[in-house]
Amino acid sequence: MLADYLQRREKLIAEDRALRIDHVRANYSAAEIKADKVVRSIRAKEAVSVWGVDHENIPHPYPGMEFLNAKEIIVKTDLFSKIVSKMPKGGLLHLHQNTSVEARMVLDLALGHPAIHIRVPGPLDAASLETVLPKIQPIPVEQYPAADAIGITDLLYTGGWVPINKARELFDPALGGPAGFDKWVLSTFVINPSDAFKTYNTPMKIWLKFGSTFAVTDPIIRFVPIQKEYLRTCIRSSIDDGISYIEIRTSFFKKYILAEDAKTKLELRELLLIFREVINEVKAEMKAKGREDDFAGLKIIYNTLRIISVEELEAELDRCSRFKQEFPDLIAGKSACKPLIYYAEPLLRFAEQHPDIPFIFHAGETLGDGSAADMNLYDAILLGTKRIGHGFSLAKHPKLMQICREKKIAIEVCPISNEVLRLTSSMPMHPLPIIMNQGIPVVLSSDDPAMFNSMGLSFDFFQVLVASEVTGLLTLGQMARDSITYSMLDERSKRKAMDAWERRWTKFIDEVAAMSP
Amino acid sequence: MLADYLQRREKLIAEDRALRIDHVRANYSAAEIKADKVVRSIRAKEAVSVWGVDHENIPHPYPGMEFLNAKEIIVKTDLFSKIVSKMPKGGLLHLHQNTSVEARMVLDLALGHPAIHIRVPGPLDAASLETVLPKIQPIPVEQYPAADAIGITDLLYTGGWVPINKARELFDPALGGPAGFDKWVLSTFVINPSDAFKTYNTPMKIWLKFGSTFAVTDPIIRFVPIQKEYLRTCIRSSIDDGISYIEIRTSFFKKYILAEDAKTKLELRELLLIFREVINEVKAEMKAKGREDDFAGLKIIYNTLRIISVEELEAELDRCSRFKQEFPDLIAGKSACKPLIYYAEPLLRFAEQHPDIPFIFHAGETLGDGSAADMNLYDAILLGTKRIGHGFSLAKHPKLMQICREKKIAIEVCPISNEVLRLTSSMPMHPLPIIMNQGIPVVLSSDDPAMFNSMGLSFDFFQVLVASEVTGLLTLGQMARDSITYSMLDERSKRKAMDAWERRWTKFIDEVAAMSP
Repeated sequence: MLADYLQRREKLIAEDRALRIDHVRANYSAAEIKADKVVRSIRAKEAVSVWGVDHENIPHPYPGMEFLNAKEIIVKTDLFSKIVSKMPKGGLLHLHQNTSVEARMVLDLALGHPAIHIRVPGPLDAASLETVLPKIQPIPVEQYPAADAIGITDLLYTGGWVPINKARELFDPALGGPAGFDKWVLSTFVINPSDAFKTYNTPMKIWLKFGSTFAVTDPIIRFVPIQKEYLRTCIRSSIDDGISYIEIRTSFFKKYILAEDAKTKLELRELLLIFREVINEVKAEMKAKGREDDFAGLKIIYNTLRIISVEELEAELDRCSRFKQEFPDLIAGKSACKPLIYYAEPLLRFAEQHPDIPFIFHAGETLGDGSAADMNLYDAILLGTKRIGHGFSLAKHPKLMQICREKKIAIEVCPISNEVLRLTSSMPMHPLPIIMNQGIPVVLSSDDPAMFNSMGLSFDFFQVLVASEVTGLLTLGQMARDSITYSMLDERSKRKAMDAWERRWTKFIDEVAAMSP
Repeated sequence: MLADYLQRREKLIAEDRALRIDHVRANYSAAEIKADKVVRSIRAKEAVSVWGVDHENIPHPYPGMEFLNAKEIIVKTDLFSKIVSKMPKGGLLHLHQNTSVEARMVLDLALGHPAIHIRVPGPLDAASLETVLPKIQPIPVEQYPAADAIGITDLLYTGGWVPINKARELFDPALGGPAGFDKWVLSTFVINPSDAFKTYNTPMKIWLKFGSTFAVTDPIIRFVPIQKEYLRTCIRSSIDDGISYIEIRTSFFKKYILAEDAKTKLELRELLLIFREVINEVKAEMKAKGREDDFAGLKIIYNTLRIISVEELEAELDRCSRFKQEFPDLIAGKSACKPLIYYAEPLLRFAEQHPDIPFIFHAGETLGDGSAADMNLYDAILLGTKRIGHGFSLAKHPKLMQICREKKIAIEVCPISNEVLRLTSSMPMHPLPIIMNQGIPVVLSSDDPAMFNSMGLSFDFFQVLVASEVTGLLTLGQMARDSITYSMLDERSKRKAMDAWERRWTKFIDEVAAMSP
């Protein structure tokens, strides 16, 4: 009786998981199967040895817990340092450009350029430090303050521009001096645990903090000499994390970038020229090192903001198609965020006129059931989106899941972003397994990693791996493959990128399989 | 172009929602449609007027927020006081007996009986008050302490039994006197916000608190004179909340109840006699008031604990079938909680021998993906469960959802329990809409309402109603209908209960439809 029962049980489990990408692919190599076992064994051990014990200042540790609290533990695990961080990740397909470089690096770039100045409303003290947001931006040389300008913590300071380096040097020692300056500025660049879990602990509130950090860093990045170095750093650090291709969402909402003189407003076309230059430069660099497999390129997804009118969208669509004509390899697609139904008419027309520019919409980044952001899923799909950004609420929609499965619309799942922005309280609460088990292709993405202090893809991959006993290394491998399959690379480049990834994967798998579990 | 688009959009939304219970039923009356609109309008207004403003001591209010923080706001809303609390709820199908009466009432029952005594390890002070759990139980008269016994906060107290009334009277005024005593004792009976959101803020940790409260109240309830009053209160207060039928899970893990003399251990058969007596009493009471429609009865689901061995289970199954023979109307089914696969053999045999005693298993009350509690779902279904208790992780299992839909296995969803026990951080994060949209029957249940301070079903219904823009009053109505359809009532009693419910529903709908929205 029991034997028969166990047989029926095996069959039912297999049927239940039949649609998962890691079950659809069946011909795993012996090394892959061995490596997967090694990883499951390390994960099971560390569930006890790392996540089952108390850590100083980290209440209630568990696998997949809040990332901002868990990060120091994560980086010390073998699973992270020996496995996930070494894995070839494939493509990073959902990344906002203005949060694509680590906060510390952005501050260093700002400190490294003499045009960058800082301003606050009046002298900073211990109390105002908690709430004041600085303005940091390049200013033209004729506006530079006199050389004897005082610091922003000086009682005589009246709110004018101070060179950022000087403001740092002169920062009141009682507030920590230069190190205190860095700590304060960086806290305005990122979301801190106290923001996410106390001050702004709801999906609605955390957006306030989210918006404020963009406002602080944007003028630094929108400056040609820094922009160039910023993009270079983004690509290089991604490559270091095992990412071999990037689709970056760039907002063209502000209509210029600032030239080296900090005065001349350059057209956005100049920004695309910078992209092309830096991409070619890094490609040449990788080729010179014999590492061509490690970087297949970068494309831009033309992003617009949720707040524009239909007329403004028409102008944006126009600019997007002009850019596509001039930079056909650089423009991957078009993304928009407002309730899509509002823009249905111009978008339908654009789709008809420009079959070469696919839509890649954000939709369903919400806890709502039937709310506007949730309803966007219907429109994204009806408008023909190639992928869906976030799709967090997709699990509620059986018919839409069926369509995504059948039409191979991949979901760009951003685990850490969803958790820090409070759509889910921890990774085990995330709907990712629901989506995966429905046979819908998934690519893991980092969204705004600078803001979450989660650079690269390793942290997102890690959180997914520890939050499930079904998912294993081979699942992550399939997701990496899918990130190339569902990229906007042309067919030839895609095959090339996939071949390169497979070579790296085989090498990686051999290394993992050789570890003693 | 747009007109065609909008038409396709309507069609897609309808297809996506086609399986929902509130869409399957189509022939709503004009009054039902009107009442649903009234409710949606009140909900939309209060989303702004109540949930959109700050409340003292309640950070970040929003609809569906943590129940323990939200309760004071909820009871003041029109949606709760004028609509949800008045609605006929149908059956309450998932309720643990030992948490079925409000904590304050249990304390009053204890204070009302001279045999009930209290004991703590030594004199209580402000510090130990935070951590010490009292022992409260009936003791035989010959063990009563001398009449001049001192209080439990007296420095000379050495840890003996004190009559609970006396302990209350003598409670140190510096610790609040009798009111301070009540506050302290009640805090050991329930889960407080600080337990759920601070001290034990994970699904693993909160179980510690959960278990401790059972240990405190169990000896009070397991005493015949109190047991009787306890059950009477449970039924009466449920009726007051619009519940007309109850299936209560009673644990037969401890093998006796204590007689009036606080000495004689009575067989559990006596407990069933008490049930029969009280049920008949309340039925007669309702009949005398002309309110027969308001109570269709109560059945017991024979519950076992997760910790027993296979041999112990065999004995339990044996007792269960003997009880079913003697009390055929009283025993609704059999429920067990440990990894079910462990018990597969005896359960399979029992099912074959006792087709009259259906299984009603807990399964999937977990955030795990592939964990033992998650895997229980496969076994519950293979073993032929009639309903699933919780089924929280069911959304991850496409094949199992299909089976539940086809075989009409209803899910006993316990919204507030899941949230307080930290499976979900708020109602909008709950997977209920996923399950509903897959066409799986759902009954809302309260689980352990005394522990969550959520007596009745109104609070659970309310949280579900405010957390979705798709769900409306008619959805709640269908859930109430389903709670009768998927009850263990025999066919004749079911029809009778349903007819009674429909009469009450029609009256309720007319009242709501007459409200100005």
